[in-house]
Amino acid sequence: MAATWAEAGTVEVLAFDIFGTVVDWHGSIAREMAARYPGVDGAAFALAWRAGYKPAMARVMSGELGWTLIDDLHRLILDDILPRFGLAHLGEAERQELNRVWHRLDPWPEAVDALQRLKRRYILTTLSNGNIGLLTRMARRAGLPWDCVLSAEVFRAYKPDPRTYLGVAQVFALAPAQVMLVAAHHDDLAGARACGLRTAYIERPLEFGAAQPKDVSPREGNDLHARDLAALADQLGC
Amino acid sequence: MAATWAEAGTVEVLAFDIFGTVVDWHGSIAREMAARYPGVDGAAFALAWRAGYKPAMARVMSGELGWTLIDDLHRLILDDILPRFGLAHLGEAERQELNRVWHRLDPWPEAVDALQRLKRRYILTTLSNGNIGLLTRMARRAGLPWDCVLSAEVFRAYKPDPRTYLGVAQVFALAPAQVMLVAAHHDDLAGARACGLRTAYIERPLEFGAAQPKDVSPREGNDLHARDLAALADQLGC
Repeated sequence: MAATWAEAGTVEVLAFDIFGTVVDWHGSIAREMAARYPGVDGAAFALAWRAGYKPAMARVMSGELGWTLIDDLHRLILDDILPRFGLAHLGEAERQELNRVWHRLDPWPEAVDALQRLKRRYILTTLSNGNIGLLTRMARRAGLPWDCVLSAEVFRAYKPDPRTYLGVAQVFALAPAQVMLVAAHHDDLAGARACGLRTAYIERPLEFGAAQPKDVSPREGNDLHARDLAALADQLGC
Repeated sequence: MAATWAEAGTVEVLAFDIFGTVVDWHGSIAREMAARYPGVDGAAFALAWRAGYKPAMARVMSGELGWTLIDDLHRLILDDILPRFGLAHLGEAERQELNRVWHRLDPWPEAVDALQRLKRRYILTTLSNGNIGLLTRMARRAGLPWDCVLSAEVFRAYKPDPRTYLGVAQVFALAPAQVMLVAAHHDDLAGARACGLRTAYIERPLEFGAAQPKDVSPREGNDLHARDLAALADQLGC
C-alpha cells in the first residue's frame, strides 16, 4: 500500500479529525474528574458528556438552536449531566473551568511525533467540529504542529455536512481527491468519501475506555487503514 | 513601557497583519520579477500590483463583486497590469504560477525569531485579508509559527471591517482589550482601536521599496510603537 501511495502522490493536505483520533478525550476527562472529584465515576462522566455531543449538534443543524460553538454545546451538556453525578452544587466559575477540560485533552502517545513526520511532506490541518479557540489552545498545550486550524466554525456546518469536507479543498484551491481525511470514525470518513476526498481510518480501540473496546476491524472504502498515526506516517512514506 | 505591559498582562492573543508587517511583499515580488523577466521593472510592477489591492477589495465590500478570495483579486489585478509591463503574452499556466508569488513572500529578517519569542507567552494568529490557503502556504515556506490562521475569509469581511477585529476576540472568547493587533498600517490599527483592541505599530520604512521610504513617525493612540518585531518582543518582555 505504501508503494501505491508513493506513486499516486496527489494528496497535498491531510485533514485530521481531533476528538478520539488525535487526542484521548475519554482518558483525559476521566483522569481530570478523578483528580478533582474523587467520589465521581470519571469514566462514566466522560461517556455521559460525550454522549450528549451528537444530539446537541443535531439540534443546531435542524435549526432548533442557532449556530453554536462546541464550547457552548459542551457547557449545555455539562449543566445537564452534573446533577446525575452528584455535582449540582458546582458554581459558575467551577463549571467554566471544568468545561475547558476539552481544551486540555492529552494527545495519544504517538501523535505529536507522527504529526511532525507527516508535516514534512503534507499540509496538516484540523477538521474538527470543535471551535477554533478550543483547537488552538489544545494545540499549544499538547504541541500539535498544525499548519492551520480549520473547524466547523469556519464553514458554519458540522461534519458530516459536505460543506466541511469540500470547504477544506476550496480553502487550498485543490480537487477533493488531493485532500485526505484522517479519522477514527466511519461516519466521518464516509462523509468525506462521498465528497471525493481520500480517507484514512485510524484504529483507536480504547477511544471509549478500556471497559468498552471499539471494533476497529477494517471496512471497505477507505484508502488507508492504520493502527495509529505513526503507522499512517509509515504507509505514506514519511 | 515594558514595565507597564508586564503589569497589565491582560493581552492573551497577538493578531498580526501580514503583508508589509511580517513579510516583505515589495522586495519579494521585485526580486522574483527581476529573476523571471529581466527586462521588466520589478519594483514598479510590485507597486502596481499592490496598488490594485484596496480598490479590488472595495468592489467586493460594495457588493459589486461577490465574496472573492485575495488569490482571485490578485489574479484580476495581475491580468489588468500585465500589458502595461509588456507581458500581455503570458499564458494561463505562467499567470497562475506568477500569481502564487504572494504565497512565497519572504519574511522581514527578524520576523521568524521574534515570533518564536512572542509565541512562548502569547497565542499568535494571523489577521490578514489574505486567504487561508495563501497564509498557510506562506507560513510553511517561511517558517512562521502561527498558532492559528485567521483571515478575512473566516469572517467574510475585509479589514478594517469591525467583524474582523471583533471576530478574533470572539474566536478566543476574550474581551477585545485582551487582543492586540500588530500592524504596520495606521488605518488597520485605527480600525482595531475603534473596536477596543490593543494596538502595536511596527515601523516598516522600506515597505514600498528603498525609493519610496514611508513616514514611520509615532502617532497617537497606539499602545506600542516598535521598530520591528524583535523590538516588540523586547517591549512585551518576551
